[in-house]
Amino acid sequence: MITLLTDFGWRDHFAGVMKGVIARIAPRAPVVDITHDVEPYQIDQARFLLAQAWPYFPKGTVHVAVVDPGVGTARRPLLVEAAGHRFVGPDNGLFSDLLALRGARVRHITNEKLFLQEVSATFHGRDVFAPVAAHLVKGVAAAKVGPRIDDAARQTTGEPMKTGKRVWVGSVVHADRFGNLITSFRLADFPWVAERRFEMRIGFERLRELKENYASARPGEVIVLVGSSGMLEVAMNQEPAARKLGVGIGAPVELEIL
Amino acid sequence: MITLLTDFGWRDHFAGVMKGVIARIAPRAPVVDITHDVEPYQIDQARFLLAQAWPYFPKGTVHVAVVDPGVGTARRPLLVEAAGHRFVGPDNGLFSDLLALRGARVRHITNEKLFLQEVSATFHGRDVFAPVAAHLVKGVAAAKVGPRIDDAARQTTGEPMKTGKRVWVGSVVHADRFGNLITSFRLADFPWVAERRFEMRIGFERLRELKENYASARPGEVIVLVGSSGMLEVAMNQEPAARKLGVGIGAPVELEIL
Amino acid sequence: MITLLTDFGWRDHFAGVMKGVIARIAPRAPVVDITHDVEPYQIDQARFLLAQAWPYFPKGTVHVAVVDPGVGTARRPLLVEAAGHRFVGPDNGLFSDLLALRGARVRHITNEKLFLQEVSATFHGRDVFAPVAAHLVKGVAAAKVGPRIDDAARQTTGEPMKTGKRVWVGSVVHADRFGNLITSFRLADFPWVAERRFEMRIGFERLRELKENYASARPGEVIVLVGSSGMLEVAMNQEPAARKLGVGIGAPVELEIL
Repeated sequence: MITLLTDFGWRDHFAGVMKGVIARIAPRAPVVDITHDVEPYQIDQARFLLAQAWPYFPKGTVHVAVVDPGVGTARRPLLVEAAGHRFVGPDNGLFSDLLALRGARVRHITNEKLFLQEVSATFHGRDVFAPVAAHLVKGVAAAKVGPRIDDAARQTTGEPMKTGKRVWVGSVVHADRFGNLITSFRLADFPWVAERRFEMRIGFERLRELKENYASARPGEVIVLVGSSGMLEVAMNQEPAARKLGVGIGAPVELEIL
Repeated sequence: MITLLTDFGWRDHFAGVMKGVIARIAPRAPVVDITHDVEPYQIDQARFLLAQAWPYFPKGTVHVAVVDPGVGTARRPLLVEAAGHRFVGPDNGLFSDLLALRGARVRHITNEKLFLQEVSATFHGRDVFAPVAAHLVKGVAAAKVGPRIDDAARQTTGEPMKTGKRVWVGSVVHADRFGNLITSFRLADFPWVAERRFEMRIGFERLRELKENYASARPGEVIVLVGSSGMLEVAMNQEPAARKLGVGIGAPVELEIL
Repeated sequence: MITLLTDFGWRDHFAGVMKGVIARIAPRAPVVDITHDVEPYQIDQARFLLAQAWPYFPKGTVHVAVVDPGVGTARRPLLVEAAGHRFVGPDNGLFSDLLALRGARVRHITNEKLFLQEVSATFHGRDVFAPVAAHLVKGVAAAKVGPRIDDAARQTTGEPMKTGKRVWVGSVVHADRFGNLITSFRLADFPWVAERRFEMRIGFERLRELKENYASARPGEVIVLVGSSGMLEVAMNQEPAARKLGVGIGAPVELEIL
């Protein structure tokens, strides 16, 4: 199985063409779109979406992730193997979270025999990443793809940082379709949010209550809940919190234990 | 075969993750998106789209429909069996039309062994509905899912109501991509529209002519035709009627026989 | 394998229903979306996207392309066989480029036994084109579909025309998700662009440099490069050139050799 996660959008031929390329090499491999609507060039957002998606797929899946503002330059194409999954995409920080996993191995994809015959300077999703993924699901060994490396790009923007005695600053890592704002605060790292008094500051809001689900919010009320990502999420009941607060991806979020 | 119909949108990982969950349980089941662009929380619109789609799929298909503002509350997850198809989703009126079908049977999904191990309070599409659907296509018997019930939620908003001697009021149930306005008037229920003089009132328009196809309308003219849904549709030729009339889903539509 | 390329959008049930129809006839045929976001009724844009996509699919693929403002009128449904691929869609110029290929053969689809039992006047994607495609992948011979014809509609809007001694006027054939403007100038036809001094005029810009990739552009700079389509493309580095220039599909582009 192959998944695709890109900023190519749904209106062009880009994602469809990648599936054609895959079908010519591995006709029986099912291909699943995670999304193609990553905001153009937003590597952080892609990191979040990839982290949400890959653990739910079967082991052995090859995940193709392409958010690639440096396409055609010297930035390397990578294969990352981690947790029984494989990941193919550009070396620009997209795979930072995976590199931290125990036993993660990274290779620089150099074997041009696995690429399309002609490689353009602007569409490596089609010419490099899709064919390499297809060859991998067909059984080509990782070692044939290229040499091991240990200096892949890492990016850690937005992770919560301690800024005071009981204060951390994180950020909004994603605003979903419903206008829910997913923060970089993971409940597992801040378990006291479920037990003690806290204040979350975002936009002009000061939020002090953790609610169970969206329907628990009163009309117009902005709440905090534990989203399906395991991260703290700022939400409303059938209304877009993102619009009400006027904040989006990248906005700072302060958390204080009271 | 499994279909997905949700208000999750295409920009998040939601739909992709559901396919991952399905693939881990039923790796060979093809999954087809009906759409993920139901307007957030619009159960009526989802009902319309589901009604348009399911009859065209093979018998035995499991349709997963999730528009679920009450996710995480006490609202029940349902399995509906009707017309040789199966439907999985929340008990909020989404399946109203199916309940009316002869021989329809409804079950309250209670067997937690069929869910993901951890069930979040905000994403039952991933944690409940997708895995249950996958188990069903793999052959789990309906009876194993949970007990029969006969009090599933019904919703009948927008159905035409007689308001005068020869006058009915219905509504716009969907505005499609082209700006065509699909009304709740079904030709089969109002066959005289094809035979006699009528007037349809919508926005500031009074429409008196039934046309064969979009290309029959003159530039700028708003017409009535029988859409591919079998319902009366208000349309223009290569222009969005929805924008010209300034009306959308839920708008009232009056039909009078003259 | 079957591909779908339409202007039906992603928010309606249209594309999903086509897949249901196909699954009932050819349950094992994989179906791939090229895109459904062709601008409504824009045959030229669909031609461009189809030309970008089909060569990357396996031989034998049936491509269903539906941008069909004349649906329900006398316009003919067509089967085009070219280069080992098959194409099904309306006779309105969508397949112009294919007709020019050596050995291309065109048939008027007339065999109603291959259609759905009831054919609506507004949704031939579902009632005609999807079922015909499914029958074709199941092995129905092209000859059974209908008679050969040689007068299929051709459309050549936007092709570069010589307007001066060393001047050509072409057009923007597509603006992609990133705001890159793809012109109708194919590098293979204008190879001197890579070798000599030239000026491309588009909107208020006069562009004189061919760059290798997007990242080669300075912030705010508008450049010309050879896109993944083999066509000259007007682009910026991580910014939408379409918005900066204020031009879109159909805009004229002048090319002069200096």
